[in-house]
Amino acid sequence: MPTTVPVLLTPSAGAPFEHSTVELRDVGPNDVQIDIAFAGICHSDIHQAREEWGEAIFPMVPGHEIAGIVTEVGSDVTKHRVGDRVGIGCFVDSCRECENCLAGEQQFCVKGNVATYNGRQYSGEPTYGGYAKQIVADENYVLSIPEGISLDEAAPLLCAGITTYSPLKHWGAGPGKKVAVVGMGGLGHMAVKIAHAMGAEVTVISQTLSKQEDGLKLGADHYYASSDPETFGRLKSSFDLIINTISADMDIDAYARTLRLNGTMVFVGLPENPQSFRAGSLIGGRRSLAGSNIGGIPETQEMLDFCAEHRIGAEIETISADDVDDAYERVVASKVRYRFVIDTATI
Amino acid sequence: MPTTVPVLLTPSAGAPFEHSTVELRDVGPNDVQIDIAFAGICHSDIHQAREEWGEAIFPMVPGHEIAGIVTEVGSDVTKHRVGDRVGIGCFVDSCRECENCLAGEQQFCVKGNVATYNGRQYSGEPTYGGYAKQIVADENYVLSIPEGISLDEAAPLLCAGITTYSPLKHWGAGPGKKVAVVGMGGLGHMAVKIAHAMGAEVTVISQTLSKQEDGLKLGADHYYASSDPETFGRLKSSFDLIINTISADMDIDAYARTLRLNGTMVFVGLPENPQSFRAGSLIGGRRSLAGSNIGGIPETQEMLDFCAEHRIGAEIETISADDVDDAYERVVASKVRYRFVIDTATI
Repeated sequence: MPTTVPVLLTPSAGAPFEHSTVELRDVGPNDVQIDIAFAGICHSDIHQAREEWGEAIFPMVPGHEIAGIVTEVGSDVTKHRVGDRVGIGCFVDSCRECENCLAGEQQFCVKGNVATYNGRQYSGEPTYGGYAKQIVADENYVLSIPEGISLDEAAPLLCAGITTYSPLKHWGAGPGKKVAVVGMGGLGHMAVKIAHAMGAEVTVISQTLSKQEDGLKLGADHYYASSDPETFGRLKSSFDLIINTISADMDIDAYARTLRLNGTMVFVGLPENPQSFRAGSLIGGRRSLAGSNIGGIPETQEMLDFCAEHRIGAEIETISADDVDDAYERVVASKVRYRFVIDTATI
Repeated sequence: MPTTVPVLLTPSAGAPFEHSTVELRDVGPNDVQIDIAFAGICHSDIHQAREEWGEAIFPMVPGHEIAGIVTEVGSDVTKHRVGDRVGIGCFVDSCRECENCLAGEQQFCVKGNVATYNGRQYSGEPTYGGYAKQIVADENYVLSIPEGISLDEAAPLLCAGITTYSPLKHWGAGPGKKVAVVGMGGLGHMAVKIAHAMGAEVTVISQTLSKQEDGLKLGADHYYASSDPETFGRLKSSFDLIINTISADMDIDAYARTLRLNGTMVFVGLPENPQSFRAGSLIGGRRSLAGSNIGGIPETQEMLDFCAEHRIGAEIETISADDVDDAYERVVASKVRYRFVIDTATI
C-alpha cells in the first residue's frame, strides 16, 4: 500500500483549500524524504491555483518555497543526511543533459524542468508541492539551508530570494552601483535586503510611501512613490540596475529614463499584458530591458549561503493551514508584510 | 565679408533641395577646414528634412556621413594636416566635461552634443552638414580616414558604419558568436560586413529573399525571410545578438525567442511607434532588448581603422546633387543598394 501524506489541496481552479492526502513516492536511491516545516506562499501559487496562467493540473498542492528536515535518504545519496536542514524551490528535476543544465542553469533547461507542483515528472506523474507535511525529491534538487537562518524565514528564499539574488548578481549589484527596486512586496523586500547586503545603494520605487519606514529599515537608502509626479524627473539617469518586481502595467519609458548609461531594467514578475516601450528610451543611453527567471541549483545554494552569512531572511507572517484562502486574498490586495509562510504542522 | 560655401539646402520641411550658399565659419585655432568629396544620404536625413522627428531648423543642409580632404588647419591643430583624408559623423562638438564625454562616449554627452546639422553650436549658431562643398569643424570631432578605403565608400561609415560597429563590439560579436541582422538596407548591409569581419556567424532576416544573393556575398552565412511563416520556428533560440536595423513595427516576441540564453536584441533604428513585448519572452532565457546610438569619437576612429584593415567600405551608388530628391524617394521605398553618396563636386 502506497504511503500517503497530509496536504492542503485545491480540487479545481479557484476552489477553497481542503485538508486531504496525496501519495508520497517511494524514496529512490537518489532521493531524500523531507519533513516540511514551513512553506511560503508565492503570488505565482495564486495564479496557478486559479488557473490564470493557462491550463493547470488538479487537484493541486501548491508550494515551491519549502523548508524542512531530512528524515530519510536513499542508498546512493551523498549530499544530504538525516537531520539536515534543507529546502526545495521551483523545480525538482531537469534533463541534466542540455547545455543549460550542464552549466547549472537548470531554470533554463531546454527540455523543460519539472516544476515542484502543477508539473509532471518525466515519467508523467503529477508533482505536488510544499503545502504538505512531507515531500520526496532527488537530492540534486534539494538545497542545504545553513545554520544562521531559521527555517520559517528561509522558506521564501527558495523563490523570492533567488528570483532577486540572481539578477542582482548577474548584472553586478555591489559597491558603487545604484540599484532601484520597483515594488515593495514579497520579491521587492528581498531585493532590498539582498542588494543592500551586496553593498549597492538601494532606492525603492513603490506606488505610495506607505511602506517607506519598512523599506529604509530593511536596507533602502532612498524611497520614492511612483504616484508622485515629480519622482521620475528627480530620478532621471540615476540607476545602473532596476529590479522590477511588479506585474501591473507600467510606463516602461519613464522607468527606462531613470537608468544611467548602460543601465538595465530587469523584469522578474510576469505582467499579464504586453508592455510597450519606445526604442528611443533605450537608444538614448545604451539601456536594456531584460528578464530573469529564478536561478539554477548552484546559484540557489550560493544565495542561501550569502543570506546566512549576512543574516538575511524573509520578513514573514506565519499562518496556519486554515488561513490560506484568506492569505491569498491578502496577497492579491498587497496586504502582507511581506511573505506568508504556512506552518505545515497545522496541515 | 564672411566666406560662403555652396550647399544643397532645403528651405522648409519637405521642400525640394536647392543649390544655395551658407556662411562658412572662420577657421579657429582648433579648427580644420575640409573640402568635402562625398556625403552619404542617411535615412535620418530624410526624417529631419521632412520634419518627422519634431521641430527642425530651416534652411537645412543635411549630411552627417562626410568624407573629404583637409585644406586648412588652425594654429593649435595637432591631429590633422593639410591634405589628410578625413571624415565627420553625426556630431561636431560636445561638452567635453561630463562623465560620458570624458569616457570618449560623446554620443551620450549629458549636456547634449552638437549635431552636425539641424543643430546649434553651444554659441547658438545653426549647424550645416555635408551636402556642401566645404565644412569647418573642431579637430577633435574630425576622424582620420585610413588609406585602404576610398572616400566615397568611407563616407557612409561615419554613421551607418559606427551605428552597427558599436553594438557589435559592445555585445561581443566575434568567433563562436551567432549574430542576426534584421533588415538588409544601409545599416543592415554594414552590419553584415562588419559582423562577418569580426568572425561571427551571420544570419540576415529580411522581409523577403530579394537581397539574399547580395547578403551572402557581403558575408552572411544564412539568409531568411521574415515573411516566411516557418522562419521564426526554425530560428528559435539561435542567436547571441540581434542587430535590429528596421524602423517598422515588428513582433518583438517572435524575434526575442530567436535569442539564445543571455542573448540581446539591439535597436539601432528608431521606430516611429512604441513597440510592445511580453516580459515572458525575456524571462524565459534571460534575454535583453537594448538600444545603441552611433558611437563616440575614439570608437568611430577604431571602426574606420578596422574597416580599412578588413577592406570594408559601404556598397554605394554615387549620385549628383540634382538627384537628391529622387534618391530620398528611393530610400523611403527601400530601393537603394545600399547607400547613396552625393558627389559634392556637383553641388
